[in-house]
Amino acid sequence: MSEGPNASDFHDLDPAIRVLMGPGPSDVPPRVLRAMAAPTLGHLDPDFLELMTETQVLLRAVFQTQNPLTIPVSGTGSAGMEACFVNLVEPGDQVAIVVNGVFGTRMVDCAGRLGAEIIPIEVEWGRAADPQAVADALKGKQPKIVAVVHAETSTGVCQPLTEIIAIAKEHGALMMVDCVTSLGGVEVALDSWEIDAAFSGTQKCLSCPPGLAPLSFDEKAVAKMMARKTKVKSWYLDLTMVGDYWGAQRKYHHTAPINMIYALREALRLVVEEGLDARFARHRLNHEALVAGIEGMGLRMLVPAAERLASLNSVCIPAGADDLGTRRALLRQFGLEIGAGLGPLAGKIWRVGLQGHSATERNVRLFLTALESVLKSQDVEAQPGGPEAADRVYARSR
Amino acid sequence: MSEGPNASDFHDLDPAIRVLMGPGPSDVPPRVLRAMAAPTLGHLDPDFLELMTETQVLLRAVFQTQNPLTIPVSGTGSAGMEACFVNLVEPGDQVAIVVNGVFGTRMVDCAGRLGAEIIPIEVEWGRAADPQAVADALKGKQPKIVAVVHAETSTGVCQPLTEIIAIAKEHGALMMVDCVTSLGGVEVALDSWEIDAAFSGTQKCLSCPPGLAPLSFDEKAVAKMMARKTKVKSWYLDLTMVGDYWGAQRKYHHTAPINMIYALREALRLVVEEGLDARFARHRLNHEALVAGIEGMGLRMLVPAAERLASLNSVCIPAGADDLGTRRALLRQFGLEIGAGLGPLAGKIWRVGLQGHSATERNVRLFLTALESVLKSQDVEAQPGGPEAADRVYARSR
Repeated sequence: MSEGPNASDFHDLDPAIRVLMGPGPSDVPPRVLRAMAAPTLGHLDPDFLELMTETQVLLRAVFQTQNPLTIPVSGTGSAGMEACFVNLVEPGDQVAIVVNGVFGTRMVDCAGRLGAEIIPIEVEWGRAADPQAVADALKGKQPKIVAVVHAETSTGVCQPLTEIIAIAKEHGALMMVDCVTSLGGVEVALDSWEIDAAFSGTQKCLSCPPGLAPLSFDEKAVAKMMARKTKVKSWYLDLTMVGDYWGAQRKYHHTAPINMIYALREALRLVVEEGLDARFARHRLNHEALVAGIEGMGLRMLVPAAERLASLNSVCIPAGADDLGTRRALLRQFGLEIGAGLGPLAGKIWRVGLQGHSATERNVRLFLTALESVLKSQDVEAQPGGPEAADRVYARSR
Repeated sequence: MSEGPNASDFHDLDPAIRVLMGPGPSDVPPRVLRAMAAPTLGHLDPDFLELMTETQVLLRAVFQTQNPLTIPVSGTGSAGMEACFVNLVEPGDQVAIVVNGVFGTRMVDCAGRLGAEIIPIEVEWGRAADPQAVADALKGKQPKIVAVVHAETSTGVCQPLTEIIAIAKEHGALMMVDCVTSLGGVEVALDSWEIDAAFSGTQKCLSCPPGLAPLSFDEKAVAKMMARKTKVKSWYLDLTMVGDYWGAQRKYHHTAPINMIYALREALRLVVEEGLDARFARHRLNHEALVAGIEGMGLRMLVPAAERLASLNSVCIPAGADDLGTRRALLRQFGLEIGAGLGPLAGKIWRVGLQGHSATERNVRLFLTALESVLKSQDVEAQPGGPEAADRVYARSR
């Protein structure tokens, strides 16, 4: 190499310490960071194969499933979405998709590339789908798959699933659920709810760095995959092969992201140590305190109370407030990251995550007081009672 | 959750300390593990965007290219392969692929799924392709892409590229190269060699944990991608969108694997600190010492000297030796991982990696003495002069 950068051009890595209250990643506990930095094992090392087994046992516990095919896909959450569609869709299959945000829209794009005949079920962004609308859309159709986003990260909507699952079953369709922003923070019970295929990400309520996509297929989903007439379009995500690596055979397919799996195992251990019910309650409590604080300040939530997602809170930007300026000030003055609105909600909402390790009283109080301070600096009218309203929620819980 | 595993069922992560001399992953330097464990930033945090830029500058230096589209794909090495094919192949395209090992075979599988009309160029496993065979196979054909594996990890062959690249250019085809086991250990010079598309992995000669796939497209590859008549079959790997996140726009596509990128940046810094030429020379020296030791013991290398890959050494298993027993003994007695043969070479070779941080005199000596000891315990005849033959190579270099 004749020319090029000098080593001295690049400083030692020293990222700022943030409080991550955006749409994800969430704050990663030191235990998870430490586990990730353990020495790398080979992907066929007997010690690593044992860690894989343990990771699968823990993942099944968190997904509340006995599905043998429960694995972390070697990519971020969207790779989990793609793995679901690429393995389950064959060209010409009817696939019904609820579209009420970025991630439903993304599903349509993904399934469409694979030759699916999409049945879109369009719903206002910021609202959950009415099961009746789903039933109506499916009348006279033969969908092979019904897909919904459980936790719409772009809007803060938590989609009730029971009735939609029943409708999918009536049509003999597989039920596929995007649990990226719910798993580990808001209940997801694959077996008792009869979800056939689900995917998630590690960097939301599991508080592990991004890089893996937990996925689970039940026997019906596996049967559809095994009965394919066409080869899966993706070599990398072909679960008939990836499943042999994570199954009893441990047959080499691709090199697994070893250290990311260390991190996921540790993050899942933390979930099991806390207990799922306690964890869901913690997310719910901090969400209620945050909403009380926001409403106490006279601001508005985008999503109606019954449809709100604890792990992602969409706050309407008040009149006169500077969207970007507020986010920048929170980051610079308080080290606090929140998210911007996407698509039609850009400039209209802030997205405030309470996910995993980030869902704490301390963070809720920091956000409320910091937001109050920044809005005041912009001469935006906000009532002074925000933090105190949150107090009352926490007092109730003690 | 009613039942399920108890937290106490899972011990603190404490993987064995190995010496990784298999086909990869290689040993990861403590600096890289430490960098990976730095606190997670958001994927749109201004500090992280800067780290992305630096990672790209460093990646370009290591690929020896100015290509703007030089990025780490969010998956392991095989995701890099898939990203190349899925973005560059349209149904019906003729794609010529040299097949002389597992990774050429994998390319055929991957491109075939995308509707490519494959022109396979079959070569004996353990040998490089003769450029004349490539020229003959392409006669009368109109290949859009010619794809070869530079460093065949399954056999230990380093494919000379100059003439094959010239043949591809004569046909107006894009030249695509799998550099998974060469990048950072054996020279790869994208611009001066006129390679149009290349992919690699992080866990080989870059000595970063697995989880990212460095990839680079030149302007011809980008032009073919932008002129597609059909949408890229993969949403996750669609570089027309992923490129916007890594490009000037920094437009959100999917959440990047933040901490893996910390690790890659640090691994690349280490490469630049050492210098590419010094690094290639180190790989070459330790390879020569290992070969001298193997031949000094009276054992044989699979690949003819002129076609050998420094970073992956395939040693023929001597008569009477127990393949699995030897690998197990090396792991249990010496903490030393080497790789098994794959496919037609299973049971016939051992694969000994000298990649990145693992390519050291200390490791070569450990391997030779450990192998000598294990073979002796199996009553396999091996000449006693192995380690001494390696001595002579190191002495020459001082």
